[in-house]
Amino acid sequence: MKLKKSANHYSLYATIIILILIVALGVSSCGDQEGESETVSAGLSSDAGAIAEARGLTPEDVAAALKTYTPSGTHDEYIMFASGGHSGQVYVIGMPSMRILKKIAVFTPEPWQGYGYGAEGTMQLLADGSVNGAPLTWGDTHHPALSETAGEYDGQFLFINDKANARIAVIDLRDFETKQILKNPIAVNDHGGTMVTPDTDWIIEGGQYAAPLGWEYSSLDNYADDYRGMVTIWRFDRESGRVLPEQSFAMELPPYWQDLCDAGKLVSDGWIFCNSFNTEMATGGVEKGAPPFESGASQRDMDYMHIINLEKAVEVVAAGNTIDVNGFPVIPLDTLIEEELLFFAPEPKSPHGVDISPGGEYMVVSGKLDPHVTVYSFDKIQDAIAAGNYVPDDYGVPVLDFDSVVEVQVELGLGPLHTQFDDQGYAYTSLFLDSTVARWTLGGEYADLNDDPEWSLVHATSVHYNVGHIAAAEGDTVSPDGKYLVSLNKWAVDRFNNVGPLLPQNFQLIDISGSGTSMPLTYDMPIPDGEPHYAQIIKADKLNPWEVYPEVGWNPHTQSVDPNAVQTGEERIVRDGNTVEIFMTAVRSHFTPEHVEIQQGDHVIWHITNVERAYDATHGFSIPAYNINVSIEPGEAVTFEFDAIEDGVFSYYCTEFCSALHLEMVGYLLVEPE
Amino acid sequence: MKLKKSANHYSLYATIIILILIVALGVSSCGDQEGESETVSAGLSSDAGAIAEARGLTPEDVAAALKTYTPSGTHDEYIMFASGGHSGQVYVIGMPSMRILKKIAVFTPEPWQGYGYGAEGTMQLLADGSVNGAPLTWGDTHHPALSETAGEYDGQFLFINDKANARIAVIDLRDFETKQILKNPIAVNDHGGTMVTPDTDWIIEGGQYAAPLGWEYSSLDNYADDYRGMVTIWRFDRESGRVLPEQSFAMELPPYWQDLCDAGKLVSDGWIFCNSFNTEMATGGVEKGAPPFESGASQRDMDYMHIINLEKAVEVVAAGNTIDVNGFPVIPLDTLIEEELLFFAPEPKSPHGVDISPGGEYMVVSGKLDPHVTVYSFDKIQDAIAAGNYVPDDYGVPVLDFDSVVEVQVELGLGPLHTQFDDQGYAYTSLFLDSTVARWTLGGEYADLNDDPEWSLVHATSVHYNVGHIAAAEGDTVSPDGKYLVSLNKWAVDRFNNVGPLLPQNFQLIDISGSGTSMPLTYDMPIPDGEPHYAQIIKADKLNPWEVYPEVGWNPHTQSVDPNAVQTGEERIVRDGNTVEIFMTAVRSHFTPEHVEIQQGDHVIWHITNVERAYDATHGFSIPAYNINVSIEPGEAVTFEFDAIEDGVFSYYCTEFCSALHLEMVGYLLVEPE
Repeated sequence: MKLKKSANHYSLYATIIILILIVALGVSSCGDQEGESETVSAGLSSDAGAIAEARGLTPEDVAAALKTYTPSGTHDEYIMFASGGHSGQVYVIGMPSMRILKKIAVFTPEPWQGYGYGAEGTMQLLADGSVNGAPLTWGDTHHPALSETAGEYDGQFLFINDKANARIAVIDLRDFETKQILKNPIAVNDHGGTMVTPDTDWIIEGGQYAAPLGWEYSSLDNYADDYRGMVTIWRFDRESGRVLPEQSFAMELPPYWQDLCDAGKLVSDGWIFCNSFNTEMATGGVEKGAPPFESGASQRDMDYMHIINLEKAVEVVAAGNTIDVNGFPVIPLDTLIEEELLFFAPEPKSPHGVDISPGGEYMVVSGKLDPHVTVYSFDKIQDAIAAGNYVPDDYGVPVLDFDSVVEVQVELGLGPLHTQFDDQGYAYTSLFLDSTVARWTLGGEYADLNDDPEWSLVHATSVHYNVGHIAAAEGDTVSPDGKYLVSLNKWAVDRFNNVGPLLPQNFQLIDISGSGTSMPLTYDMPIPDGEPHYAQIIKADKLNPWEVYPEVGWNPHTQSVDPNAVQTGEERIVRDGNTVEIFMTAVRSHFTPEHVEIQQGDHVIWHITNVERAYDATHGFSIPAYNINVSIEPGEAVTFEFDAIEDGVFSYYCTEFCSALHLEMVGYLLVEPE
Repeated sequence: MKLKKSANHYSLYATIIILILIVALGVSSCGDQEGESETVSAGLSSDAGAIAEARGLTPEDVAAALKTYTPSGTHDEYIMFASGGHSGQVYVIGMPSMRILKKIAVFTPEPWQGYGYGAEGTMQLLADGSVNGAPLTWGDTHHPALSETAGEYDGQFLFINDKANARIAVIDLRDFETKQILKNPIAVNDHGGTMVTPDTDWIIEGGQYAAPLGWEYSSLDNYADDYRGMVTIWRFDRESGRVLPEQSFAMELPPYWQDLCDAGKLVSDGWIFCNSFNTEMATGGVEKGAPPFESGASQRDMDYMHIINLEKAVEVVAAGNTIDVNGFPVIPLDTLIEEELLFFAPEPKSPHGVDISPGGEYMVVSGKLDPHVTVYSFDKIQDAIAAGNYVPDDYGVPVLDFDSVVEVQVELGLGPLHTQFDDQGYAYTSLFLDSTVARWTLGGEYADLNDDPEWSLVHATSVHYNVGHIAAAEGDTVSPDGKYLVSLNKWAVDRFNNVGPLLPQNFQLIDISGSGTSMPLTYDMPIPDGEPHYAQIIKADKLNPWEVYPEVGWNPHTQSVDPNAVQTGEERIVRDGNTVEIFMTAVRSHFTPEHVEIQQGDHVIWHITNVERAYDATHGFSIPAYNINVSIEPGEAVTFEFDAIEDGVFSYYCTEFCSALHLEMVGYLLVEPE
């Protein structure tokens, strides 16, 4: 044999390496390394043209590449929180690189995060979201909403709803983990969650498909009488980081299908606006010769924008003018009318969302079967209410006169859906049928911000394909940033390599930093996991998450040190009858203890503390055959319990590749047969 | 109000739109649209320099951006199939854009794909993977392996193992869906799966942490006598696309911790090579004062590469020379020795993988506590066996003389782990402690392929941080492509925006198309979901997945038309006692029927056929409160069953945003109380 470049002194060499590995773990090369720091000035390389040529990149492609490429170690400017649709989760995406930085487990168990695989805090969360005790292990996340302070995203919390089962969840952005799941006590499904009021005092959850309130049964023959719409107003307590159900309430609405709700802001603060569809009260039944929902619910020229006086509603609830549905206070429809909490404005046609202008002056509605966006004036709405300029609908709700509340209608194209805003006085609306995103101008105080004529279509950029929502940087705040807009496309078709009959969806990044007709597509991002229904985009420097948990032994669910956490040296196994309690630590590269010897039939309570303080030094812990997997981030303490039904020898091990000796981070659970 | 640019003829307009939407769904704008086809020649834009300057991109960054950016509608050149680690899934990633195109659900339920949320084929798959009937809802995927024909990836199947529970799965690349999950009948955990033999006749599953075979109990005091290692050899039948357990077998090995196995190829075809560690037979027990596994298993200078004569083993099994463990044939250790099926070669030190050179001549082993890679010669191994140049180990296995079987050792640096190959005569080895990927030269027939001296280190590129496996384009075939190599880094630390204590891992793309010291990093890709342990990379044009299922009514589990599928017009509800069977169709934008009226306590069998033939026209179907969600791709038929325990009104709806009238794709399940 040949031996190249070194003597064969294995023992000596290995001893040195083991010393490096075991003794000096804290200063391993992992965490403290810098990228090669080259002091090269910015600019093009001499071979840039040749590379572009070889790969067939057009000048537009090159510009797009340079606008989005984010080199190793440099950070993205914005963070997008996107619904994961029927994955039940939330995506965290860096912009402009459009890379997925995290998936936050919310309604669906997820083993990487150890979410729903034994860890007791997560098991409790998922149980809290059950319906009548029946566990739900997925959700259909729709509208993520960032917490706001004075109408600006503050980077503290994120909220998200589950359309399928009418649930909402609270995520703490200190550790990007779900802290609370709440089942709506009166509705089976929802849609228009979880927009917040400007200081996050309230979280709004709008309904969707009408049903008897409180999950009751009634025949469709009784639709008009027994079926109802709803909006639920959840009280959020920033201090505890929790929704307070006991201070929350709902409103009984006619059985029109409420859809999307947004909170007023600045001049319209204290009001809520929801669109609706199926005011036809179609009940389907295509199999019986009735028109299917798709046409039955699309007959009328106008549906109703719901205009809700939230401030006054809170007073009505405080005064006790509610009924009780499943233990939850609901303002009855009659009271809403009597107390002048609810008004309708006609909205053409099969509308899909209400979007409030940054200053709160305008409510923008797109009827997907109408080529216009309809812009309502908050002032005009208030005037019409004050003047009593309305007639009752079938349920007695006052319907404001259309012409008296509309500021303007702007023709944009086919299938308008959702609108976002920028800092240049432009609005952007997705057009489903045209497959475009239209840029158009606002008027009023916004007219001076650009050179284009007010209230007019400026440009439309083609997108691919079937755009639903769009999201602009800081787009739902009182001061949108502009710069970036994402088109959330439902189909990808030919955009990416074929990966079988089930295709990803497609987020397309659009550069809206220019004005007028400058609005190029710069990136196509496949989303391979559920329908990414809506997203909000926050400036990255507003987020300030923990690098490691504040103290060793941290319980992320109580956000305090767990009484069952242990420090190094305190590890032990305690038996009490047939209950065995294990107090374990994890550190690179071993668990202590490494042997757990129990009897078949024992009940096991297992606590693990990750005593690491190094950034990124997460350990996983799994037990074969017992379906246990937890993720223990630096400083975190977790607890799980199980009954030792299976006898045998089970090697528990670390599931996060944590060090060069990660494979050796293992122990044996020995379950002696009865 | 002002009305801009159009008359207010809602009714006429809406009628036209409804016609477009409802009648002409098949020719909607979705599927047939082309991107704006501009005939612009390739090259740089005039503002490219200014953009680079503004974003602080170095010339190297610009080159990297242009090498990886893949414009809208253009397709990636390679597809990487990456393990999703303890997510339990497989990632499908386009290269060089490094975008996630799909996540394939394997061991973990996943609602987007409707995997494990009612659809009976998927429920059966997951049940097949249970341990003694106890359901497992996650896995720890490790080594994906593409099916091969004559040692080349053929793009037909993908295999993956679950380290946590010793399972393997088969994925069909016609629809990128999991078709089979098998629990290893003799082992609790595994690691070294699922490399294939050159024609995919056999799939190899190596063990990991020794335990009594057959999941039996025995005290650690009996480690040497009762604990065993193993390798399982699964027979794959390409015709049926299934592993045939009844033609598969395992081998009993000493209780050294077998780790990674690779199949020989070309000159070494018919042989299998596995590395091992913990030949010390350390049993841990740090809490009792014993050395922890990390040091106990790192004492010896040499562990043992396992050299297995597969061809001869198959004959031994055919001759019936096996014992029965849990109904599975196992060749006992004594027989392995007697029949000369198993040899050891010493390998320094705590080795981590065996990688076979493209021609099958060399076995490359990296001892992570040794600065060298050790290169064994297959010819020399055969000569040593023929010459009887060995001594028995403690279990009687013949250990070949180290010097007589080693071709060369090449010093690379600290913590070498895994090796890949290219088409230029280079090998690439990950160095965990150095945090680099080293390029070094092969000798022998490979020496002429480059200008660098044979068997020597050429260059090391820094990676960030803690690299494990690396994967090169077509890297495990008999003819690697070179060009791209991915460093699968375990930690990200500062590479991306902080997203809380749990960070993504980091795939770094390296351009290996150059020679010598040209080996730049070109992309950092966060992997936010489990430890992406290993990956294989195939030329994209070798894949030919279905766009839609071959016929309407297709059952993806039988790969044939389902007897319960229906065509449009055949929908019906059939009651038989308290069993209600629903035969439903889904098409944009309605389900038929739209009403399902049943009694509480009924048993429901629900069949849905997606009658669409358009590419990407997938429908989802969910029932609130019942935890049902299925994905029905174009042409697919699914069945699910449940007991109608909850009474009430449940709106079932489409969970894939399928058309402008997707929100109206809904129906009512009415469960009348008992």
